[in-house]
Amino acid sequence: MIKAEIIAVGAELTSGQCLDTNSAWLANRLDDLGIDVRFHTTIADDLADNVAAFRLASERVELVLVSGGLGPTQDDLTREALARAAGVELVRDPRAEADLIAFFARRNRPIPERNFVQTFIPNGGEILSNPIGTAPGIWFRLGRARFACMPGVPNELKMMFIEQVVPHIKGLTGDSARVVVRRKINTFGKGESEIEADALDLTARGRVPEVGITASEATISFRIAASGSTEAEAREALQPTVDLIYRRFGDWIIGEDDEDVQHALARELIARGATIALAESCTGGLISHMLTSLAGSSAYFPGGVVSYSNEAKVDLLGVPRETIETKGAVSDETARAMAIGVRDRFHADLGLSVTGVAGPSGGTVEKPVGLVYLGLAHARGVESRRLELGPEQPRSTIQRRASKHAINWTRLYLRA
Amino acid sequence: MIKAEIIAVGAELTSGQCLDTNSAWLANRLDDLGIDVRFHTTIADDLADNVAAFRLASERVELVLVSGGLGPTQDDLTREALARAAGVELVRDPRAEADLIAFFARRNRPIPERNFVQTFIPNGGEILSNPIGTAPGIWFRLGRARFACMPGVPNELKMMFIEQVVPHIKGLTGDSARVVVRRKINTFGKGESEIEADALDLTARGRVPEVGITASEATISFRIAASGSTEAEAREALQPTVDLIYRRFGDWIIGEDDEDVQHALARELIARGATIALAESCTGGLISHMLTSLAGSSAYFPGGVVSYSNEAKVDLLGVPRETIETKGAVSDETARAMAIGVRDRFHADLGLSVTGVAGPSGGTVEKPVGLVYLGLAHARGVESRRLELGPEQPRSTIQRRASKHAINWTRLYLRA
Repeated sequence: MIKAEIIAVGAELTSGQCLDTNSAWLANRLDDLGIDVRFHTTIADDLADNVAAFRLASERVELVLVSGGLGPTQDDLTREALARAAGVELVRDPRAEADLIAFFARRNRPIPERNFVQTFIPNGGEILSNPIGTAPGIWFRLGRARFACMPGVPNELKMMFIEQVVPHIKGLTGDSARVVVRRKINTFGKGESEIEADALDLTARGRVPEVGITASEATISFRIAASGSTEAEAREALQPTVDLIYRRFGDWIIGEDDEDVQHALARELIARGATIALAESCTGGLISHMLTSLAGSSAYFPGGVVSYSNEAKVDLLGVPRETIETKGAVSDETARAMAIGVRDRFHADLGLSVTGVAGPSGGTVEKPVGLVYLGLAHARGVESRRLELGPEQPRSTIQRRASKHAINWTRLYLRA
Repeated sequence: MIKAEIIAVGAELTSGQCLDTNSAWLANRLDDLGIDVRFHTTIADDLADNVAAFRLASERVELVLVSGGLGPTQDDLTREALARAAGVELVRDPRAEADLIAFFARRNRPIPERNFVQTFIPNGGEILSNPIGTAPGIWFRLGRARFACMPGVPNELKMMFIEQVVPHIKGLTGDSARVVVRRKINTFGKGESEIEADALDLTARGRVPEVGITASEATISFRIAASGSTEAEAREALQPTVDLIYRRFGDWIIGEDDEDVQHALARELIARGATIALAESCTGGLISHMLTSLAGSSAYFPGGVVSYSNEAKVDLLGVPRETIETKGAVSDETARAMAIGVRDRFHADLGLSVTGVAGPSGGTVEKPVGLVYLGLAHARGVESRRLELGPEQPRSTIQRRASKHAINWTRLYLRA
């Protein structure tokens, strides 16, 4: 298995001013190619440190990916450090020069003199074209290691890696390369420990294919990875585990990759040609925002009311004033009345309501921070649900969890 | 100036499965303490790699911060690697043992046998207590370098760094330490290049104190850093530049640190005892969500209507049907009618409306994606504004930019 190191260059990274996301992205791609990433190193714009880091990497791994330090300024030292580490000269590369001239010609702009430094590469190296920037990359052999130097700008780095570095790497790995295929299956509504308890056989150490569980804002995801000598073989190795997860966790599954509860609800609404109107109090418009962040949401979402004040609940949703006065704005009865009112006013198939105490203040012993009531009105009547999401959680978490539970509850109603 | 290296340990980091945010956080803190961070290194859970990385760090810097590898499992190798690098034994630390016993006693749970491995530290080291987890940290001298080893869990790492590592570091730096003080001042409404052009004197290289400009979702921020031998001295060095920025950019300034347009609008509304109601079409509830994400928003926000469909604009906001039919839902006239309608229905001092084409579909030659009209109704009448935020921008950017412009426009109206 080929061992690799990823080196990021830039004082803005060592100082912590910028978060390095390139290295993790590259590590993931190498992992998919079956390459063992052993080290990440971040260094500032210092020539001696760069030379030392390149030499060390060339001694301990076979493949080194470098990001940054290829710009036209004096701080950009990757070219020179690589040449010094190898003991060779920097030479002007005619292809890099032609690319540079073409880049500025397309923009009808003169070429700043300093950009010509970017056409020099260490003798024996090969340039990696950069169609969307002025900094070409460099493919170079130092000792027994191959170096791929790429610009630090994420878009330029990603395009260069995929289009130009991957073929070079495949040339190194030859037929021995393993292809890794991944799936991420998301669930909502069951806690992480419950999901874990129901998946002990899947997450057991040494199981093939590997299954991991991660959690983000109460959405619990299975991550499955399988490898094979071809993509088809890897997919075949993956599929039985995917099928098993779908069979076992059925209704809890809301989608794959970046899909969350709102995508799942949108699918159910579209499949049934149904519409939904929203009456939001403590979630303050977040559910509307989540639904309308999806393109095409006007097909099932006519709109909603953010009834933050009691007057709005009465005037705009028709909640009886005595319900609020006797039961309170945060109550099962108010949630039901809000749902009925909003369904009626928007002529929708479903009316979904949320009322609760998002905090940090406003909680009482009887109605603590985190207490939330949901209401769902439909053609056959209205139902409600009580959630306890606090009291120690911050406002943003209570709003987000309440929104996700409300959306998921509606989704499950439609599937029932 | 003391030189430092930050080492993160964990296969989930080298493989790219998790993004390392600890290292950037630690680098920022060290920068504030006037320490020069020269290297970040990330290594997997491999004993030989750990030993080699610790030795290398001890030869090239004076301070090494290590995160991760302190848990109770076989993958947790920091303790052993540190002892091997120094050529010393691991010894049981009585304070670590007492902390561990107390930790489980507070939870009324038996101590798993494997946790006792966490009470061993390299001979000559000192433990760093962890009040919120089971893994104590380690302060240790290796060669001429001091090592602070902390757990990888971000909350535990941050608490341990602030409470226990910083005093150790101050013991090293003594009186020679420089204190760095920072301010971040946020503006909205002017483009990054305009702000830059008006701030060339501030951002000139070598200026003291340093001023940088960063942009995030159309909010442009000045970052100012000044140093001194005491905090008071650093603040004094900073203040004239802060004053200059406030004088020069006056009304464009919306707040400091994490404050954005919604915080600035909330301040203006509270100062005037005014209320605002929202009629959102293309922003789909995002403005409501931004306002209600702030604690205490019920003081100035009675609520709003998300009038996604034309019927909702007519039924709930009283927009004349002929306005929509003749001028269109996305028009100056509809925006004005929405603002008047929502102000009236919620009995608010201000009615703010947004209607536009968020895309990706729905655009025409006359009304392209990104065309947005804002309306603002108040006691003296109604006004409107036209924005062009597309057409190449994604839906999420158009929704977010439209929301921020609408909020900022209202803020400026109140200040005028």
